[in-house]
Amino acid sequence: MIRDRVLALLRQVADGQLDINTALDRLARDPIESLPFATIDHHRALRQGYPEVILGQGKTTEQVVAIADHIAARGEGFLVTRASPEALDRLGRTFARAEINELARCAHLAPAEPVPSGSGTILIVTAGTSDLPVAEEAAVTARALGNTVDRLTDVGVAGIHRVLAGAETLTRASVVIVVAGMDGALPSVVGGLVARPVIAVPTSIGYGASFGGVAALLAALNSCASGVTVVNIDNGFGAAVAASRITHASIS
Amino acid sequence: MIRDRVLALLRQVADGQLDINTALDRLARDPIESLPFATIDHHRALRQGYPEVILGQGKTTEQVVAIADHIAARGEGFLVTRASPEALDRLGRTFARAEINELARCAHLAPAEPVPSGSGTILIVTAGTSDLPVAEEAAVTARALGNTVDRLTDVGVAGIHRVLAGAETLTRASVVIVVAGMDGALPSVVGGLVARPVIAVPTSIGYGASFGGVAALLAALNSCASGVTVVNIDNGFGAAVAASRITHASIS
Amino acid sequence: MIRDRVLALLRQVADGQLDINTALDRLARDPIESLPFATIDHHRALRQGYPEVILGQGKTTEQVVAIADHIAARGEGFLVTRASPEALDRLGRTFARAEINELARCAHLAPAEPVPSGSGTILIVTAGTSDLPVAEEAAVTARALGNTVDRLTDVGVAGIHRVLAGAETLTRASVVIVVAGMDGALPSVVGGLVARPVIAVPTSIGYGASFGGVAALLAALNSCASGVTVVNIDNGFGAAVAASRITHASIS
Amino acid sequence: MIRDRVLALLRQVADGQLDINTALDRLARDPIESLPFATIDHHRALRQGYPEVILGQGKTTEQVVAIADHIAARGEGFLVTRASPEALDRLGRTFARAEINELARCAHLAPAEPVPSGSGTILIVTAGTSDLPVAEEAAVTARALGNTVDRLTDVGVAGIHRVLAGAETLTRASVVIVVAGMDGALPSVVGGLVARPVIAVPTSIGYGASFGGVAALLAALNSCASGVTVVNIDNGFGAAVAASRITHASIS
Amino acid sequence: MIRDRVLALLRQVADGQLDINTALDRLARDPIESLPFATIDHHRALRQGYPEVILGQGKTTEQVVAIADHIAARGEGFLVTRASPEALDRLGRTFARAEINELARCAHLAPAEPVPSGSGTILIVTAGTSDLPVAEEAAVTARALGNTVDRLTDVGVAGIHRVLAGAETLTRASVVIVVAGMDGALPSVVGGLVARPVIAVPTSIGYGASFGGVAALLAALNSCASGVTVVNIDNGFGAAVAASRITHASIS
Amino acid sequence: MIRDRVLALLRQVADGQLDINTALDRLARDPIESLPFATIDHHRALRQGYPEVILGQGKTTEQVVAIADHIAARGEGFLVTRASPEALDRLGRTFARAEINELARCAHLAPAEPVPSGSGTILIVTAGTSDLPVAEEAAVTARALGNTVDRLTDVGVAGIHRVLAGAETLTRASVVIVVAGMDGALPSVVGGLVARPVIAVPTSIGYGASFGGVAALLAALNSCASGVTVVNIDNGFGAAVAASRITHASIS
Amino acid sequence: MIRDRVLALLRQVADGQLDINTALDRLARDPIESLPFATIDHHRALRQGYPEVILGQGKTTEQVVAIADHIAARGEGFLVTRASPEALDRLGRTFARAEINELARCAHLAPAEPVPSGSGTILIVTAGTSDLPVAEEAAVTARALGNTVDRLTDVGVAGIHRVLAGAETLTRASVVIVVAGMDGALPSVVGGLVARPVIAVPTSIGYGASFGGVAALLAALNSCASGVTVVNIDNGFGAAVAASRITHASIS
Amino acid sequence: MIRDRVLALLRQVADGQLDINTALDRLARDPIESLPFATIDHHRALRQGYPEVILGQGKTTEQVVAIADHIAARGEGFLVTRASPEALDRLGRTFARAEINELARCAHLAPAEPVPSGSGTILIVTAGTSDLPVAEEAAVTARALGNTVDRLTDVGVAGIHRVLAGAETLTRASVVIVVAGMDGALPSVVGGLVARPVIAVPTSIGYGASFGGVAALLAALNSCASGVTVVNIDNGFGAAVAASRITHASIS
Repeated sequence: MIRDRVLALLRQVADGQLDINTALDRLARDPIESLPFATIDHHRALRQGYPEVILGQGKTTEQVVAIADHIAARGEGFLVTRASPEALDRLGRTFARAEINELARCAHLAPAEPVPSGSGTILIVTAGTSDLPVAEEAAVTARALGNTVDRLTDVGVAGIHRVLAGAETLTRASVVIVVAGMDGALPSVVGGLVARPVIAVPTSIGYGASFGGVAALLAALNSCASGVTVVNIDNGFGAAVAASRITHASIS
Repeated sequence: MIRDRVLALLRQVADGQLDINTALDRLARDPIESLPFATIDHHRALRQGYPEVILGQGKTTEQVVAIADHIAARGEGFLVTRASPEALDRLGRTFARAEINELARCAHLAPAEPVPSGSGTILIVTAGTSDLPVAEEAAVTARALGNTVDRLTDVGVAGIHRVLAGAETLTRASVVIVVAGMDGALPSVVGGLVARPVIAVPTSIGYGASFGGVAALLAALNSCASGVTVVNIDNGFGAAVAASRITHASIS
Repeated sequence: MIRDRVLALLRQVADGQLDINTALDRLARDPIESLPFATIDHHRALRQGYPEVILGQGKTTEQVVAIADHIAARGEGFLVTRASPEALDRLGRTFARAEINELARCAHLAPAEPVPSGSGTILIVTAGTSDLPVAEEAAVTARALGNTVDRLTDVGVAGIHRVLAGAETLTRASVVIVVAGMDGALPSVVGGLVARPVIAVPTSIGYGASFGGVAALLAALNSCASGVTVVNIDNGFGAAVAASRITHASIS
Repeated sequence: MIRDRVLALLRQVADGQLDINTALDRLARDPIESLPFATIDHHRALRQGYPEVILGQGKTTEQVVAIADHIAARGEGFLVTRASPEALDRLGRTFARAEINELARCAHLAPAEPVPSGSGTILIVTAGTSDLPVAEEAAVTARALGNTVDRLTDVGVAGIHRVLAGAETLTRASVVIVVAGMDGALPSVVGGLVARPVIAVPTSIGYGASFGGVAALLAALNSCASGVTVVNIDNGFGAAVAASRITHASIS
Repeated sequence: MIRDRVLALLRQVADGQLDINTALDRLARDPIESLPFATIDHHRALRQGYPEVILGQGKTTEQVVAIADHIAARGEGFLVTRASPEALDRLGRTFARAEINELARCAHLAPAEPVPSGSGTILIVTAGTSDLPVAEEAAVTARALGNTVDRLTDVGVAGIHRVLAGAETLTRASVVIVVAGMDGALPSVVGGLVARPVIAVPTSIGYGASFGGVAALLAALNSCASGVTVVNIDNGFGAAVAASRITHASIS
Repeated sequence: MIRDRVLALLRQVADGQLDINTALDRLARDPIESLPFATIDHHRALRQGYPEVILGQGKTTEQVVAIADHIAARGEGFLVTRASPEALDRLGRTFARAEINELARCAHLAPAEPVPSGSGTILIVTAGTSDLPVAEEAAVTARALGNTVDRLTDVGVAGIHRVLAGAETLTRASVVIVVAGMDGALPSVVGGLVARPVIAVPTSIGYGASFGGVAALLAALNSCASGVTVVNIDNGFGAAVAASRITHASIS
Repeated sequence: MIRDRVLALLRQVADGQLDINTALDRLARDPIESLPFATIDHHRALRQGYPEVILGQGKTTEQVVAIADHIAARGEGFLVTRASPEALDRLGRTFARAEINELARCAHLAPAEPVPSGSGTILIVTAGTSDLPVAEEAAVTARALGNTVDRLTDVGVAGIHRVLAGAETLTRASVVIVVAGMDGALPSVVGGLVARPVIAVPTSIGYGASFGGVAALLAALNSCASGVTVVNIDNGFGAAVAASRITHASIS
Repeated sequence: MIRDRVLALLRQVADGQLDINTALDRLARDPIESLPFATIDHHRALRQGYPEVILGQGKTTEQVVAIADHIAARGEGFLVTRASPEALDRLGRTFARAEINELARCAHLAPAEPVPSGSGTILIVTAGTSDLPVAEEAAVTARALGNTVDRLTDVGVAGIHRVLAGAETLTRASVVIVVAGMDGALPSVVGGLVARPVIAVPTSIGYGASFGGVAALLAALNSCASGVTVVNIDNGFGAAVAASRITHASIS
């Protein structure tokens, strides 16, 4: 639509309705609008059907609800992440149609027109039950972005047969997100088992020398399985967006 | 084919040609072969047409050449990474057909039968000229794995117009690998500009508080652009494998 | 018993009661069961008489009690570690026969049939009184795994005569667990005094430059006494399992 | 005036009104006064018209109010930073004329005689909305020190067009303070866009591998834009004082 | 001139010489040129009379000389920093007019037309003699950017009278750069003595717990003197550019 | 007295009252008693007249009071450090004669017979008012160990004249304890001013890159004033014991 | 034999050949000899048949050979670890009977009388070929201490079937030493597969965020397999001593 | 003598030989001289008979010799620390009377008039033979500052009887310097054995998780023996100066 606006401006110049100095000023004064980049403006692109994302952390319940209200009023959808229990409660009562996920600390209101579907399935693998909230955040996000999600839970490497038992599930996936804390060994094992993209999410699960997830983060960065990529500690949201960038690659 | 072998074994049991205790022993003694996973053995899959990878670092020139020789004798290809100048020189003289890339510290011998092609283009973006060796390692690896590679060099964020000038190149790519040291700011800017998968490679370029690439690594992990994934410092090879996992997703 | 099941399956094949394709499917679909490794499946092995371990940390009281209930209903024992006071209280009221140890933050329900006894005595040595909770977790765990436990408390190296006074106790032990925070000097002294296996548990006791136990951890890893091994900070449970692996070595 | 006092003392010696031993004792006993440095005593200089600064953190509400009261009684102004909500409330009720800024956690009472004006405008740029409290602390401080403040908010580099849209604002500023957490990429982009002094304030915004602002701090210290300087994490106050040192350079 | 080009384009549209779709394409395809930001392109601005900077570190002597040659051929000046002894030797022999500074590891060729002069004096203060190379890099850079440089050397705080003896020199300066390793205490003392902008350069001087300059860096970031700013460890070049941004503030 | 016991044992052997094997067994079984070191048993030595020290941190109020009660019942004195407000309150009400110091978080009950006096004065210097609790802990400890304490407060290096003003006080001291957080610059300045022993206590005062006192700790360890020694962060108690070791050197 | 000496002394006292004061003095003056602990003096114990260990690192070739010579002259054996190539060469030429292992950087001269044999087999598992030198150091040490050594090499978790293929070997071992760098995931997998003691040796293999083995060390300390213990990075020697403490437990 | 000079100046004023403005100028222009602090100027004090210290590290052989020459020409003594082998060789050939200590990397030329003697003995205790160079630096420094030095070597805590054997030596010392790397456990043991001042010098001896002496440094800072103080890693010189401050306390 920016293209349209610049086109309109040029048309006015061509028609003599706008003198060239005024046209120049408009282009110069308002750089965003004049940016050819608008065609690849990711944020705008995401907004075309995608829900807008609100990071709940560091905002008051009032602020979160106000922003969500503002978006919903425009008829668009939203995804609130890292929301407090109080914020989730308020969002649930305010937006009857919203999906509230306490484990994931997320609230999701689907937009009116459906989000473009990603190709294939995003598989979310977790090492232990304590990793579930991060995995759930990834799942909620992936679904909100138009993806089908599959799960493989509690398959930590200390019982390697559990991962192996998931062979069929693993090979069916388009992208695999591996959520693991403590020693962070699971991404390497999974990365060696599948040929598809593998994204590791280190979690802050553990104590002592886990240093809030640093041990798992370093393990993932040094994975002996080639081509495993990594996101920030506990960043289930980011992993899902990365996975969705892959499943939507043929579309965007 | 494992399936076939187990089938044969069961048939022998059914036919009474094999007593059940012997059958049990065979299944128990030879775990890999009995594993249903053999069908997804990634290493085997990669070997189907892909070159075998030899990490040059920590090996003597003699060892590197011996391994390469062994592989070439089988009629397969190889990719040597992090090779010393001496090793590159020896490889170049031993394997006339091998491509020697001193900047990338790599030697590549293409296999006899062509590697499956990845879909689209892998774009490698670099912040400064000092990041070029890592970018080159990524490029050599990506091509060895059957990909088309494009480049955008010296587009550090301190001169933001340089990144913006690459708009068209950026939007054409299937996957973008961003190689950046020092402040590691480039992956965030690129991640905000394109909707496709973005893989950040922090480099050890810098001094003092860059701590050998840690500053750039942390910046990439905390990217304010959602869905940027990260590999280890200076790991151009790993980024290319990750990108190739994406471009081959529809094939594998 | 897995062996038995595969044997039964093969017998059915041999008897013509099961066609070979169905047999193959069963083996393939259910990899764990077909894994020869099941015979060394540690988790299963542990379950043979051993209590199942529930990490209380990061679980709600409801979850902990539910899991414990589930295990007890099967007639098996459990060991809950890092349980909150509330969880301990609920477990104590729910399972009359369970041993509740507030200092150790553990609850233990012995299984119906007795656990295999370890050979000799596991000695737990503590530097200061603040290290007692970790030592107690080690003691509860060691006993739950079938071991005899001895104690030597408050023998920090600043009063070296106190360690020396424990000479006889030290030499009697099969394995020595040394629990120490702050400067973590005790494992080195004990490691020099005894010839038996010594396992150091650094604790988070201290402040400032103790960095939550890192000082003690590094001291233990750099012990000038050869052959001292180390577990994670505050990991009394892990040290006891490691010690029990040693005392049960002739059995397993 | 110190010069005057020493002069007076020497005159008394010359006039025989003061014996030399007493004169010597006075010089020796009261080193500050005899210091030629008194003429450049920064604290004294700052007090000439500037508000006195009270760091609220680590003080009780009673202490903060008592100190503020003491200063106000002398007819001077004060600036309380990092004040608790309770302290702000009490200060607001005690000093009717004081400006209370809850977002900035600051209270400011302007002194009777106006503070010397800085030349030009201090521009405060923020990457995200979570960085606003630190930016606000900088703004309150800058104004309290006699500066005109301009703002550019929510211009994180993931949407690079937002920074570019601020071109005119950026070029108008005398000094630019860039407040950014997470990947800390914004100072580099701004440092490349403007030729004026740029001061980066890393913030503790983020989680996981942001390590409480360390990621943003390292990024700022390794900025690929030459001549960007840095202050401590979350130190909006310090950045404003540094900027004010620049805008008052022609005066002091 | 960009303005001119867009104006020309609009004029062609107005004149009917260019159809609007072609005009739109041109604007879209060539983002830099259409950016209003070109007017504040810092790099371009710096190049107007300033020498171009070449980071010698990580480049071969051949590369450094080739780049320098290329610049000199355009009739412009250059500043090579962190150059190897060999590179300095070659530069000295190649460019007769260049100033070679071995202590600073810099080579400077002044441009044909003089660089704009900064207002006032940049004072470079050093704690110890080992800090001199970094101080010298700052001095060479400052002078190359058109500034007058003054020096105060070997005034470490362990002999506090030495700093105090520099009172007059300190008060005369427009900007003070404080170069200090080890405990990094000097910036705090100087920051308390002068009201002008103070830029700290931590150096890697020291051993053991100085951690290559980290101790001095942290001391500078936590300076108890308000408004001291900091650059990267050993970054004399960056400090000088920051200082020059201040002295040229009234010009740029 | 150990000497006496061994003497008695040898006498019995000489007298034929004890056979040599029994004598050997006694020596072997009771290592402490046979240790010539008992004569230098520091703990015993300290207990001769000194109060016993109870670390309040990590103990319940009940435990602290019980231990204190036990000691007082023996007619000895105690020093409780890092006590909670509740514990201090209880100790104050239980031991009427005890000195309760809330700022220092200490309770001190002087023993019946006076503690040996240290020679000279221990001077405690503090950089800022936030460092006072740590300084107070040092002061209470030093006095409890029989020392005279002097104070110099709020003499941070940002106002260097304040330190200089304390010249006479500084030169009068036998030992100087310097308590400083943030940049930790004060120990270096003091260490350069006085020739007597200087002990630095880094404090956890500060935020961001002070890392809980690490910045001040590193500054102290890298002090450019030779011969400054350092204790753990916030360890006022340890600094006072170290100082008291010096003032009692001629006695012990 | 100490026992013998004390016995002799007591006998002299009993016989009246030695007066009791002289006897007391001898006991007091020579504490080691009088220490009942000599019976548990580990170093002495080790020397009974074990080779003496010389850490080659930080010693000149001359020093190493001189010490070795001194030991060999006593008719005892030695084990030199971390020896330079030059030292190994010299040792090989000096001691014809010594075993020189260049990969392990060790030289071993077996003592005249055979070392007590450990029970069972010590299995050394390695993740990659670069881990071999550390594994070899462990193997040489283990054999020198009287143990049988088995090997499982190149079984990194990225090809999990390789570990599984070693099932039988793993279950046969008495103690398992797992040598692994990079992500350090192997100890967790092995720890889950076997019930016997597992000792992890993190190696410094890797680059970038492996931080010289820290990533592998943290992974091992946070192993999700219970009861895995850890030694210092690259400490193959220490792991072997720890394993030998276990295999000799029934003997010592 | 400064006092004398100011007195003389005042006398001249009193006598009318100097006009007050000139007197004022002299006082103002030359702040050091007018500082009452000059009486406690540590550097000057140290120079009264003490050798001047030259840090050899970071200086060329030429610079070191030139400075030494300059000092010797004044008839004063010098102490060069951390000197290169080449510098030591040159110093030995230039100054026939100088003591060259290669192990300590020191050169010492005693001043003409003898240095004031410290009271008692400084005992230097070392854990292992690799710690000897640091211990030797401490010994050379201590002697150069007028102290008697005693030694206790190779008494690491892994053979605790070795420390205990040094009982008499330990109790005889006025101050104890404990030099220890690796686990840094020795200062705690010694600190518990003696009542005199104990100064710990952590050394960089070790590998892997010793992190260049950080493990030993942290252990010393967290010593469970109260009142142990610490200097920088490998800082034998600083420890000796600190000890000498104590032994000269009654003199200075």
